[in-house]
Amino acid sequence: MKRNLLLSPGPSKVPAELCEVLGRPIIHHRTPQFQAILKEVFEGLKKVLKTQNDVFIFASSGTGAMEAAVANLLSAKDKAITVEAGKFGERWTELCKAYGVDAKVLKIAWGKAVQPAAIQEILAVEKDIKAVFITLCETSTATMPDVKAIADIVKQTSAVLVVDAISGLGPDELLTDEWGVDVVCSACHKGLMLPPGVSFISVSPKAMKLAEQSTSPKYYYSFKKSKKAVEKADTPFTPAINLVMALNESLKMVNAKGIENMWPYYAKMAKAVRAAAKAIGLTIFADEANASNAVTAINVPPGIDGEKLVKAMRDVHGITMAGGQGEELKGKVVRIAHMGAVDEYDILTGIAVLEKALCAMGYKFELGAGVAAAQKVFNS
Amino acid sequence: MKRNLLLSPGPSKVPAELCEVLGRPIIHHRTPQFQAILKEVFEGLKKVLKTQNDVFIFASSGTGAMEAAVANLLSAKDKAITVEAGKFGERWTELCKAYGVDAKVLKIAWGKAVQPAAIQEILAVEKDIKAVFITLCETSTATMPDVKAIADIVKQTSAVLVVDAISGLGPDELLTDEWGVDVVCSACHKGLMLPPGVSFISVSPKAMKLAEQSTSPKYYYSFKKSKKAVEKADTPFTPAINLVMALNESLKMVNAKGIENMWPYYAKMAKAVRAAAKAIGLTIFADEANASNAVTAINVPPGIDGEKLVKAMRDVHGITMAGGQGEELKGKVVRIAHMGAVDEYDILTGIAVLEKALCAMGYKFELGAGVAAAQKVFNS
Repeated sequence: MKRNLLLSPGPSKVPAELCEVLGRPIIHHRTPQFQAILKEVFEGLKKVLKTQNDVFIFASSGTGAMEAAVANLLSAKDKAITVEAGKFGERWTELCKAYGVDAKVLKIAWGKAVQPAAIQEILAVEKDIKAVFITLCETSTATMPDVKAIADIVKQTSAVLVVDAISGLGPDELLTDEWGVDVVCSACHKGLMLPPGVSFISVSPKAMKLAEQSTSPKYYYSFKKSKKAVEKADTPFTPAINLVMALNESLKMVNAKGIENMWPYYAKMAKAVRAAAKAIGLTIFADEANASNAVTAINVPPGIDGEKLVKAMRDVHGITMAGGQGEELKGKVVRIAHMGAVDEYDILTGIAVLEKALCAMGYKFELGAGVAAAQKVFNS
Repeated sequence: MKRNLLLSPGPSKVPAELCEVLGRPIIHHRTPQFQAILKEVFEGLKKVLKTQNDVFIFASSGTGAMEAAVANLLSAKDKAITVEAGKFGERWTELCKAYGVDAKVLKIAWGKAVQPAAIQEILAVEKDIKAVFITLCETSTATMPDVKAIADIVKQTSAVLVVDAISGLGPDELLTDEWGVDVVCSACHKGLMLPPGVSFISVSPKAMKLAEQSTSPKYYYSFKKSKKAVEKADTPFTPAINLVMALNESLKMVNAKGIENMWPYYAKMAKAVRAAAKAIGLTIFADEANASNAVTAINVPPGIDGEKLVKAMRDVHGITMAGGQGEELKGKVVRIAHMGAVDEYDILTGIAVLEKALCAMGYKFELGAGVAAAQKVFNS
């Protein structure tokens, strides 16, 4: 009878009605029946991404879409800017390195967000930068840069702006076309409430033009192949059929509400988590001004092992949050997600189990203060 | 109340007990709970592949594993042999081209299988061939080369043998280690009875050594990253969690029986389909000596449009077979799969619907002769 609740920043909670779709009888993908589903999925993704750009889908997890961006947009020796403010920013640098791209790396302290001016400075000096790679929600630190301000800068240059919105899409505001974001990468297992296995990417005309010059090897993730297929409501290679069928239902759920109407909902959850943490004497890892609404990283109090804390919540109580990643944060933070199907009662449950586990580990605080503080935010 | 039966060569029929697993509550992938599943999956895949080599899994469809082979084993300007005897052999050439590999292409008439001696001849002249790419079951033509004989030749050279066993694995005999096949690519949505979304690849020590020299860009499909992860029963990137959970159950079903005990079972189905086709006056596209046990391509009789035939079976009767692929075969064959969960009664159903649709389209034959011929094979 142990609860199985995912409050981790991907995979996140999958609602029962989507689990049911995953288990539905399979249909063949080269049929008018599946084509009709794919058409709806492409339109649904455009709505969520707030874009009129082409959207391509891949059977892969999020990193596949990130690799697609690097492999299609750039060639060996091309120059790019990457922003390393956590593990997923580092992934952009690693991908550039794998493709021989000359990445100018902006290293930012974990928990801080890059200053748009820092990107502007590099672009002013290095006139041949072809792409700027940033992260909407840097999941490892739960921070978020000012994407709109960065887009304002990049769009005045010949470079394209590429945003990893894998965990951010859904909770964190993202106006792809209005802000002028050229490429957005995301995946189905975060804000879109599904198990992992489908990634997607939106590509602006400016980015498609840049892609024409790229000489990097690519095949499975080729924009050219995807573009040709998308025009016939198809995919170049066999899609993850059942996940795509479920993605269609998930998109209908999100778009019925309107993603812009969900941003305040997740913002409130993030605020409730921060208030709860403070009420039991804990601090938040990220600067509040840059805190993401997709996930919150709470600093584990001195004397408590964060790894053991996460393990106790998961293995004893059945509630999965994430610990810290990398040398910087391993054992030092607990990350609680507020994305997708997570609701205010899940958040109260998460705070309650955090209180319970901290209590058992000897941390002194007023039991219930966290839950009460979160309730007050939800009721405000 | 229309039947929904897939007799297509991937995706193939998904049994209800595996649909149920797909819809189970998700668990997080970086947990001891999922690690235990992954461990079983890696072991289960080794059994099905008849190998002790490392097996890596990817969240992708089969082409992802094929790209992994090319990107990890070779570098631009390396030499390789590809065998084009159909659409999937062509894919190896296209992948080589995408990575700048100098592919010596053996073009074989569709429906025929490559002669091992033809590969030997090239290897005798071109001493620096690094890899030979072949296809176990060439799904587009339903033919199968003599992989064992080819392996006998390639293993005497410094080249590695790479086999696309995406549709062949399960129905077609494949003794990876005994024959000396270095790399085998496959996926979960054919013989392993699942919706698409997981591919896998086995890699011999000889192939791992070759991979160390490769300078081709790769990241998501990196053998090095996979090898490091597999040692901790992990994957380098987020796996397709629910598909992997279902793959574990599928592998248990197959391995409980033993894949070698299933080969005669599928061989009998293939024989029954061939007998049925002949009994209603139709011919088989592939030479019988090279016919695959995974799929049979039946020539559509003169005057009948193969595309309309497939459409009628699917849209009127709910039974999905595949038509012909490429300029060579479009509208000219109907392909019926006998793989994974397809059983003898599904085959009888398939023959019956084929008879029904052909009858409706004006083809003259003795109704019932096909089904009776298939029954006789099954009862022999």
